Amino acid sequence: MFEIVITPGVHNTDGLGHINNGVLAEWFETARTPIYKIFTPSLEFMNNQWQLIMVHSEYDFYNQIFFKRDVVIRTFIKKIGKTSFTVYHELFQENKKCASGSVVLVYYDYATEENLDITDEIRKKLKKHFYRY
Amino acid sequence: MFEIVITPGVHNTDGLGHINNGVLAEWFETARTPIYKIFTPSLEFMNNQWQLIMVHSEYDFYNQIFFKRDVVIRTFIKKIGKTSFTVYHELFQENKKCASGSVVLVYYDYATEENLDITDEIRKKLKKHFYRY
Amino acid sequence: MFEIVITPGVHNTDGLGHINNGVLAEWFETARTPIYKIFTPSLEFMNNQWQLIMVHSEYDFYNQIFFKRDVVIRTFIKKIGKTSFTVYHELFQENKKCASGSVVLVYYDYATEENLDITDEIRKKLKKHFYRY
Amino acid sequence: MFEIVITPGVHNTDGLGHINNGVLAEWFETARTPIYKIFTPSLEFMNNQWQLIMVHSEYDFYNQIFFKRDVVIRTFIKKIGKTSFTVYHELFQENKKCASGSVVLVYYDYATEENLDITDEIRKKLKKHFYRY
Repeated sequence: MFEIVITPGVHNTDGLGHINNGVLAEWFETARTPIYKIFTPSLEFMNNQWQLIMVHSEYDFYNQIFFKRDVVIRTFIKKIGKTSFTVYHELFQENKKCASGSVVLVYYDYATEENLDITDEIRKKLKKHFYRY
Repeated sequence: MFEIVITPGVHNTDGLGHINNGVLAEWFETARTPIYKIFTPSLEFMNNQWQLIMVHSEYDFYNQIFFKRDVVIRTFIKKIGKTSFTVYHELFQENKKCASGSVVLVYYDYATEENLDITDEIRKKLKKHFYRY
Repeated sequence: MFEIVITPGVHNTDGLGHINNGVLAEWFETARTPIYKIFTPSLEFMNNQWQLIMVHSEYDFYNQIFFKRDVVIRTFIKKIGKTSFTVYHELFQENKKCASGSVVLVYYDYATEENLDITDEIRKKLKKHFYRY
Repeated sequence: MFEIVITPGVHNTDGLGHINNGVLAEWFETARTPIYKIFTPSLEFMNNQWQLIMVHSEYDFYNQIFFKRDVVIRTFIKKIGKTSFTVYHELFQENKKCASGSVVLVYYDYATEENLDITDEIRKKLKKHFYRY
């Protein structure tokens, strides 16, 4: 499990006075950086070093998230297939689960536009963060 | 069906040179404004006039979206329940379907925190935009 | 002069019920695409084709901008120096000037990290959009 | 002085591989929350509790900011007038000053649309964070 704390800003709110739902895509992406690092230790975009592409994402909203308090995001791995895997995120505010989300990422060569097989080495690193509840 | 055209900006791209996946939540939300208008003709947030809350969203990404060309978003209604309904979006760039998404919105009273029954009048207006393919 | 129309989305608002000030950086950037095109006709980021870097920006806010109505942005060139130039933007909503902004962009080689001299050809194209009021 | 640390996300980058300039408006706004708290201890937007409006902002960019490393933002007060004051921000990455910015905020009653005089109590609290270098 990876855990990050994010302090919401006014720009993350919308006219309804709560955090806009679209912000979760951004916050969850920030929470995935340690996973990106497993695939691209340099975290460099150039020279075909980045080899992940998103094919699916989904979000469930249980409680409104507000501006005034920090947000905790926990990130897990849920499934690992041949060329893709699922990341699962949970968002808490004051210990209340407010939202969760899953994204499916494919190990992908942007240059050849082909899916890549997830290596055993990467698989082992991902497995350390499996969701077990 | 509702259709809007959006011109991507540089800020919508990311280090991979394409449009960042999180932008879709924003663009699809902009595409839903005519639907919000069915519920809140004034489009005012204040005084409990806004009565929709999102409980679920999901996105499928088929092809990368790029900065250089306009994007067309088509918006439909897919399901109407007792207190909630599903909006379906399709995103095209150069006539290629690049992404789609669904969001479930609940007709909701923010003051009492209770779900509201979708009225026949609203139901009739939503049905005009049903997805039939 | 270049002119674009932007339809605000709910995500552009903040808890005060108006458009968040930070959105202007994004909208004005979208308005500058035709200027970027003068420097990089392909609008491609890769292979050192993009050769502009921002060194300064400023924004003046005269009236609140709201969600409900389209926004018109007019874009002009204000000054052209040896290696840099100033772009000036004005934002209107319902014919009321709500904000303006200026950004200074330098013609810049990202690979060598050196400023480039603005060529006569580019200078001529920029001059067509000079602000004269 | 107030100091915050922000971890950039992929969505903060653009096609040039660095952090998009528009992100600074958001990050600096997050850095101003403790200042907003001086004026609105509840940090609530509703019932006319929020009484600050931005009239000017400006940003200077000295060095590109990159995705891979945390960013430190230091926030100071620079000037206090009768009804307005200036906040000054500096952004560092790996101890290198990459950008700075100033925003002018007016103490403002959104309901009556009138400027308010900054009270002695607030003035005293702001002065504790004066920029002196």
